Amino acid sequence: MNEPTRITLPDQDLPTAWYNVVPDLPQPPPPVLHPGTLEPVGPDDLAPLFPMGLIAQEVTSERWVDIPGPVLDVYRMWRPTPLFRARRLEKALGTPARIYYKYEGVSPAGSHKPNTAVAQAFYNASEGVAKLTTETGAGQWGSALAFACAQFGLDCEVWQVRASWDQKPYRRTMMQVWGATVHPSPSDVTETGRRILAEDPNSPGSLGIAISEAVEVAASDPNTKYALGSVLNHVLMHQTVIGQEALAQLAQVGETPDLLVGCTGGGSNFAGLSFPFLREKLAGRMDPVIRCVEPAACPSLTKGVYRYDFGDTAGMTPLVKMHTLGHDFVPDPIHAGGLRYHGMAPLVSHLYELGLLEAEAIGQVECFEAAVLFARTEGIIPAPEPTHALAAAIREARRCRESGEEKVILTALCGHGHFDLRAYEQYLAGELVDYDYPEEKVRQAMERIPAVPA
Amino acid sequence: MNEPTRITLPDQDLPTAWYNVVPDLPQPPPPVLHPGTLEPVGPDDLAPLFPMGLIAQEVTSERWVDIPGPVLDVYRMWRPTPLFRARRLEKALGTPARIYYKYEGVSPAGSHKPNTAVAQAFYNASEGVAKLTTETGAGQWGSALAFACAQFGLDCEVWQVRASWDQKPYRRTMMQVWGATVHPSPSDVTETGRRILAEDPNSPGSLGIAISEAVEVAASDPNTKYALGSVLNHVLMHQTVIGQEALAQLAQVGETPDLLVGCTGGGSNFAGLSFPFLREKLAGRMDPVIRCVEPAACPSLTKGVYRYDFGDTAGMTPLVKMHTLGHDFVPDPIHAGGLRYHGMAPLVSHLYELGLLEAEAIGQVECFEAAVLFARTEGIIPAPEPTHALAAAIREARRCRESGEEKVILTALCGHGHFDLRAYEQYLAGELVDYDYPEEKVRQAMERIPAVPA
Repeated sequence: MNEPTRITLPDQDLPTAWYNVVPDLPQPPPPVLHPGTLEPVGPDDLAPLFPMGLIAQEVTSERWVDIPGPVLDVYRMWRPTPLFRARRLEKALGTPARIYYKYEGVSPAGSHKPNTAVAQAFYNASEGVAKLTTETGAGQWGSALAFACAQFGLDCEVWQVRASWDQKPYRRTMMQVWGATVHPSPSDVTETGRRILAEDPNSPGSLGIAISEAVEVAASDPNTKYALGSVLNHVLMHQTVIGQEALAQLAQVGETPDLLVGCTGGGSNFAGLSFPFLREKLAGRMDPVIRCVEPAACPSLTKGVYRYDFGDTAGMTPLVKMHTLGHDFVPDPIHAGGLRYHGMAPLVSHLYELGLLEAEAIGQVECFEAAVLFARTEGIIPAPEPTHALAAAIREARRCRESGEEKVILTALCGHGHFDLRAYEQYLAGELVDYDYPEEKVRQAMERIPAVPA
Repeated sequence: MNEPTRITLPDQDLPTAWYNVVPDLPQPPPPVLHPGTLEPVGPDDLAPLFPMGLIAQEVTSERWVDIPGPVLDVYRMWRPTPLFRARRLEKALGTPARIYYKYEGVSPAGSHKPNTAVAQAFYNASEGVAKLTTETGAGQWGSALAFACAQFGLDCEVWQVRASWDQKPYRRTMMQVWGATVHPSPSDVTETGRRILAEDPNSPGSLGIAISEAVEVAASDPNTKYALGSVLNHVLMHQTVIGQEALAQLAQVGETPDLLVGCTGGGSNFAGLSFPFLREKLAGRMDPVIRCVEPAACPSLTKGVYRYDFGDTAGMTPLVKMHTLGHDFVPDPIHAGGLRYHGMAPLVSHLYELGLLEAEAIGQVECFEAAVLFARTEGIIPAPEPTHALAAAIREARRCRESGEEKVILTALCGHGHFDLRAYEQYLAGELVDYDYPEEKVRQAMERIPAVPA
């Protein structure tokens, strides 16, 4: 072995600042608007839900934001994370491409989500907040926040979409082991929940409903705030520890990427990997193609429109300019629950409009085919979300086999699939299906996007 | 922070040889006997089931056995594993003790089992074996072997105890993702299985039955061999990479352990951690107390007899001298399935007889209480097996709080509990119970231990 398979970063090289891409962009992103006044929102509009430390980060023009010591101390439980050269996968593909993946599944919650959950819990705790509320679907985000709250002595209350609560009980138990209180959503502890249950006692719930419940409880108690796991600028910024480490690890083995591929749901994992590389690209120090990969069933970048829309289904949030399929579009039930979001992070959307990013959409059957090949060669069973990025990396590696190009491909394996084996079971049994793109449903949802004067 | 929480070992310090404790012992362990002749078994007796490379390791008197390059290459996917200082747990306990844990849950299969599975798959593959068979309960060992076989192009056929097959389907799916064929045991593909199903079509199975099925298939096909996940000398030796790394990691931070605690089922995880430290103890370079922790429901060391007995329930294996509760003793259904073994590895038993090891037994409720405290402080949700070691470490740390002793405690967290959350659910609901020690059942089982002249 001339070069290692697992590229570790010395502990002392853990990044000590988050990277904010905004000041490096040729144009600033459009402002977030108040839905009533259509004026840009200010800190006071956000204060009922978020602590000032995070609101400041949401709008900062600083390029680097120092990571507080207590957050670094928790990061050190699993960071720096390993970067792997996928030698066994390359061999199985017979490709001259060199494939690297940054693995975030080593965190206690098993995904990249704790990178921001820990930061959010810290800032809330240091401003005297006693409890955080949030929503979760399959439970990746909810479990990350439950873990983070346990580290800073915060209470944590999670509304889990009823369908997931019933089907995937073990992420719920994981949250409870870490001390969180978990409700099925719709629940009888909020007005929103009671109203929906009155209409339909068997409602399977949705992320939109769960957000409304978590926000309702946070807004009604001054000691309680709300936490979001993706989409917002500060969340994306917290994730940049991923890309910063990967940059250093690739440099360690003398590599420069030709292509970055990352899966995009809300955009935080993708941004975490790619923004530090984008900085290098904008500065002319490297020139990688940076590609978003989204599910064919929920293709906000490749099929959506770039418009002001609500972040949630019920239309309670400020208006953000983003690629959207319409805020009340409900995607088909693909297994990559973390990618079933109608919109795309405003920052990722802005970069896509600027032509700095590419995007492609892939169906879930091809993704699981890639995942099983990956598991049998590289050993790790991926969560359904990053299988999209793996499928795209494999597409490219196969193209390299034809062309003979020795491309360096970098991707992020943002989580393991230990709680997603039902999906693999279905794939192995030949029962997994691709959904046709719901053109008519999207067209209708787009009609309900609010009209905002340019 | 003056000292790190996560102590990593540089990649180049991955151990390159396994440590065999036998030549360092004051007395050699008693031989394994053929059940018919009562003479020591020779290599030819074992050849139908194991490749010569492993048989040689079973009886070697070499102190160090080189790890082959292809095995090291697979180890490098996750080794060296991290050693953690449990600072947050210490703080919660208010103890002056310093607690360290070596974490093996970072392997693809999530436990220490791949350390030997990879070695066993390699030696079988290099002797032209096409397929390995084995048994598994909850699936830790079966999934490790499935992963290892995928790495060396071997077929893998696993008999999973029917009760686990029904209750814990996801480890089965994990094995299938890695390409293994998995049968519920008893199955209709073996004579043993068919015989048992004819008597009881609803048999829940047992490890003993599953072993019989796996051995039957291996013995009947020259291209198929059998693999065992614990108990045997070579299996224990493969695990010594754990202790060798821990020794180097503790030295890195200038620590010498006062106490080692490890959970014991078959004994492989315990041996892997402790044997390299035992070598230091025997050489007079350090003097740690080394303590086995076993479940109160299956206390082979603390309540068993040191006798020649069968390794399996059906009495098909050679006779090994070990601490045993009787080969047909069936422990109560505690969640730590990996510790539900009637005997103890002959080497661990021999060391216990020599007075080099201590042992204590702990009930599962105390173990889960320790596990939840550990999860909320250290972030990692442990498998039920290592919760026994954690509970013992916590007992000791609390004693140190009383006495003021600054003891250095080392333990092994041999696996994560991602597939064991049902047990946590029961604990959190107050439904987990301790079983009374089944004195009468053990007495009866002991009467059926074969009589072997001294």
